[in-house]
Amino acid sequence: MTTQFLVEQIQKKESFLCIGLDTDLDKIPKHLLDQDDPIFAFNKAIIDATHHLCVAYKPNTAFYEAYGIKGWQALEKTIDYLNSNYPEIFTIADAKRGDIGNTSTRYAKAFFEDLGFDSVTIAPYMGRDSVEPFLAFKDKHTILLALTSNMGAFDFQTKMVNGRELYKEVLEVSKSYENSENLMYVVGATKATFLTEIRKIIPESFLLVPGVGAQGGSLSEVCKYGMSKNVGLLVNSSRGIIYASDQLDFAQASAEKAKEMQLEMSMELKKR
Amino acid sequence: MTTQFLVEQIQKKESFLCIGLDTDLDKIPKHLLDQDDPIFAFNKAIIDATHHLCVAYKPNTAFYEAYGIKGWQALEKTIDYLNSNYPEIFTIADAKRGDIGNTSTRYAKAFFEDLGFDSVTIAPYMGRDSVEPFLAFKDKHTILLALTSNMGAFDFQTKMVNGRELYKEVLEVSKSYENSENLMYVVGATKATFLTEIRKIIPESFLLVPGVGAQGGSLSEVCKYGMSKNVGLLVNSSRGIIYASDQLDFAQASAEKAKEMQLEMSMELKKR
Repeated sequence: MTTQFLVEQIQKKESFLCIGLDTDLDKIPKHLLDQDDPIFAFNKAIIDATHHLCVAYKPNTAFYEAYGIKGWQALEKTIDYLNSNYPEIFTIADAKRGDIGNTSTRYAKAFFEDLGFDSVTIAPYMGRDSVEPFLAFKDKHTILLALTSNMGAFDFQTKMVNGRELYKEVLEVSKSYENSENLMYVVGATKATFLTEIRKIIPESFLLVPGVGAQGGSLSEVCKYGMSKNVGLLVNSSRGIIYASDQLDFAQASAEKAKEMQLEMSMELKKR
Repeated sequence: MTTQFLVEQIQKKESFLCIGLDTDLDKIPKHLLDQDDPIFAFNKAIIDATHHLCVAYKPNTAFYEAYGIKGWQALEKTIDYLNSNYPEIFTIADAKRGDIGNTSTRYAKAFFEDLGFDSVTIAPYMGRDSVEPFLAFKDKHTILLALTSNMGAFDFQTKMVNGRELYKEVLEVSKSYENSENLMYVVGATKATFLTEIRKIIPESFLLVPGVGAQGGSLSEVCKYGMSKNVGLLVNSSRGIIYASDQLDFAQASAEKAKEMQLEMSMELKKR
């Protein structure tokens, strides 16, 4: 998917919501556990109920790997379902991969070609030759971890390197990577005021923003400091939407939560 | 597996060789492609031929994920085969994972409990709460990326932070993590002279050393600068051993290459 198409979808739906499919058998409604593939059954119901309110879905691969082969099958079925039924949706494999060159190429093929995701999250620690194999894919997007929303972000990401914090060094250095126009970045909403400085380094790049809601970030702050000319934001919510109810009405309840966020986003877009 | 048991195996086998199972259908002998599961058939043959010469095997998960469900099945069969037939072998899932707390817990369960690996490689960028969920498993080992063997290592890992290179900051900070006695570290052999300074920070921790051979590092240099009182080294070779031949004799050829390395290692151990 091109960035231009994603921006058009945001404008059309008045939403830059990404829904995190962190599907956990301990948390989904009990009545689904009788199904052949409860993980996929849950995802399908959530997707059918919310696809018009969001522009992206983001399965975190850890939740699928945790169930072994069955988990991978559910992940495959989920991405196939999205690509077949809602091709206008931007898909993110939240995998946080990264390895030396020929190995990163393997991961890139797995996520972009075999599974058919539009994008994948990547850890920057191993540098240029671990990232560029992902960037080589046309109209696919590499979402680099810059500033994450967890406490551990302060261990290394905010330490000073070359007179600026490491996450800023990551932003700056990554701009020199080949095909860097295919980069997006993870920036945790719990540090929304940092966005002003981030926008000085990458004025237009898309940011994937976790941590709104459950983790304490504010949507209006994120928009105030982070929105770019072409919006440039995908704000993720996982648990707050998908686990809105554990009863028979779970899909409808998730749609209501998603609708609340979409309305807030619509207002933020109109402020511009 | 306890560290003590690993050290005993090294002494008994006079080897600290780790064989990387980066199994690639384009590189394995053509006659195996007729088998039901060529990846597992290849791994099994390599393992049967080399297990007495090494102390560890390290499948890189990217190579398995690249083949989707079939790849995961081959990975499961490989680790099951190792645990059932050669329980004295230390197993490493080279997965380079790392995510926020509850997600890291998912990965830890997947690799340590469900798959039954002794250890997993982890990227440090997300800090403490992304690593500690792995460290919480008794007699399981978390191998943190410190200094990798690729060119991209110079993008961030060697940049100065708090008056020392980032990889040293990673070593130092990680010592304060809960259950840090379960940490090991990846240190690329292509920068063997760095080992002297690394040993000042972590005198006894085990180091997983890639990059000997194909990537240009020297075994004697690694031993000179990196060997600790209890050896403290696992030196990995992947392509140089497993792809020694693509003919019918491939397993025997890999055993010959492994034997060469084991003999070198035996000599290095005797120098101490």
